[in-house]
Amino acid sequence: MSTPSVHSHTYTLTAAQCCAQREMPPAQTVQRIIEVATEHADLLGVGYRTLSLGGCLWVLSRVALEMNRYPAVGETFTINTWIENFNRHFSQRNFDITSADGTVLGYARTIWVAIDMTTRRPANLSSISAIASTVIDRPCPIAPPSKIHPVTEASIVNDYTIRVADIDFNRHLTSSRYVELVIDQMDLDFYDAHFVSRLEIEYRRETHYGSNVAVSSALSADGRTITTTISQIGRAHV
Amino acid sequence: MSTPSVHSHTYTLTAAQCCAQREMPPAQTVQRIIEVATEHADLLGVGYRTLSLGGCLWVLSRVALEMNRYPAVGETFTINTWIENFNRHFSQRNFDITSADGTVLGYARTIWVAIDMTTRRPANLSSISAIASTVIDRPCPIAPPSKIHPVTEASIVNDYTIRVADIDFNRHLTSSRYVELVIDQMDLDFYDAHFVSRLEIEYRRETHYGSNVAVSSALSADGRTITTTISQIGRAHV
Repeated sequence: MSTPSVHSHTYTLTAAQCCAQREMPPAQTVQRIIEVATEHADLLGVGYRTLSLGGCLWVLSRVALEMNRYPAVGETFTINTWIENFNRHFSQRNFDITSADGTVLGYARTIWVAIDMTTRRPANLSSISAIASTVIDRPCPIAPPSKIHPVTEASIVNDYTIRVADIDFNRHLTSSRYVELVIDQMDLDFYDAHFVSRLEIEYRRETHYGSNVAVSSALSADGRTITTTISQIGRAHV
Repeated sequence: MSTPSVHSHTYTLTAAQCCAQREMPPAQTVQRIIEVATEHADLLGVGYRTLSLGGCLWVLSRVALEMNRYPAVGETFTINTWIENFNRHFSQRNFDITSADGTVLGYARTIWVAIDMTTRRPANLSSISAIASTVIDRPCPIAPPSKIHPVTEASIVNDYTIRVADIDFNRHLTSSRYVELVIDQMDLDFYDAHFVSRLEIEYRRETHYGSNVAVSSALSADGRTITTTISQIGRAHV
């Protein structure tokens, strides 16, 4: 029995899962993408359970998400994922999100890096070649993650101290909470008037419990792009 | 075709959904409970879509959750829900959470109040009697929500300003974020050493975007019970 090259998960968005704009918020979209990726990796035998036997784990390194629209309240939608490429150090996994009638709502590209649990340095997954047969050439017509330059002249700066509910399985800041910290740089009126059509993230360092971070944002000249850097400014006494 | 008295949803807990203790965190447990309740209400024809036609909606008023243990990483578990009681103003909906082999991991009791969308005052659901046939007498052997007294002598006080990612469909603070604010009153070491066996919440007022709240906690003399009050202390200039 072989695991399919494309793994799918169908969800129905409940009211309690919606943001104020009555659709799936970007942070939850990223969370769902991670969920579906995890399920597929488990099915392929390259998930947490298998990698942890060799002292390794996958960490999400890059995300590019591009949405025509987000799923709406009560809507049933499907996230499909497949592997575009991989080697012993990372894998490139793509996604599309479709409505019940098959319309594409959006696409995502992600890059996952295998690290050693102890050293937190890149690992070498010698046995990963077994998944080569699942790689497929399915279209994901959005630009790959671009180079993100750290914000130097920030017009919006907020401090945040990492708390218990922000910490995940790996004892670092959850991937979706990063997205929320970025989203929270703008106010509610902004999101009533604007649509987040593309979101890119580069996870560079692990952020731990009690860390105090500065969230710094700069707007592009045309006002259409917001770049945000989350940087550690110290460890709070907690 | 009649809707079953007991509605069930089976989940598998991925690593990215776990808290630092590698299990389902309390806030996510509450979120899943709300999700499953919403699904059942929709199936019964008393969900958001139907109530909104009459200008009403359900809001969660009380929760009592009691867990023997929380679902662990990779574990498949099922949440079952049923209506114990209802009238024109509120409904009492119970839950059990079971592991794949049928062991009960925990129980929850919730009280939902129907309110008028415009006035935000209790509504009168005259047509609700149609669900009477679905009420069942299934055991939920945990104490109902008790009377929670506001904290007067707090030993832990934190301020928090409600941000975009904290706001839901109804434009108030999300039910699960309330739980996170309560959880975040203690530190990570505390949760490594202690288990949240029972959690009770009473949602009294709606908290809106930009509100500044004080989260105040007091410990009982035996150190086994933490009572927390979230109270609005002003509206921030955002």
